[in-house]
Amino acid sequence: MTAEEAETAARMFKALGDPVRLRLFSTVASHPGGEACVCDISDVGVSQPTVSHHLKKLKEAGLLLSERRGTWVYYRVAPSVLAAMGQILTTGPAAA
Amino acid sequence: MTAEEAETAARMFKALGDPVRLRLFSTVASHPGGEACVCDISDVGVSQPTVSHHLKKLKEAGLLLSERRGTWVYYRVAPSVLAAMGQILTTGPAAA
Repeated sequence: MTAEEAETAARMFKALGDPVRLRLFSTVASHPGGEACVCDISDVGVSQPTVSHHLKKLKEAGLLLSERRGTWVYYRVAPSVLAAMGQILTTGPAAA
Repeated sequence: MTAEEAETAARMFKALGDPVRLRLFSTVASHPGGEACVCDISDVGVSQPTVSHHLKKLKEAGLLLSERRGTWVYYRVAPSVLAAMGQILTTGPAAA
């Protein structure tokens, strides 16, 4: 794992290092259809503006992709990212 | 995902949200035999006391297990933790 790869991956893990953001990420990941908008999320115990703020942070970290459709922005998990993080967690880096 | 589960998992992700700690975690995970001591780690660009400090933080977050053998403390990845984190990353929580 190069220093640069570590920087990128650490930024993603850091974004998940907040309980509310982690629950939001998990909610998006497990939502029917694989995507969710703020309008779908009401059970994490924070206000809608706070939800929007955290979803934006998750997007900035490269964990979520977003698409505006009409009034709402829909978020889904960035698939390549999950593969990369999963690899780090389960087998370590591919090469030294 | 309950608030309590989110707290525990977020603590783990937060511990990986630092590039040096992430590289250390990855080094331990990919080390031959599945474990490593400070004596095995020399390529992350920080001093041995700093390596020891970060390994201790990873242990406190529940990511690594440790065992003292003679002079050295050997670290290995906590398997149950990886399964849990992997589940969160790939499929979301098992139940709402």
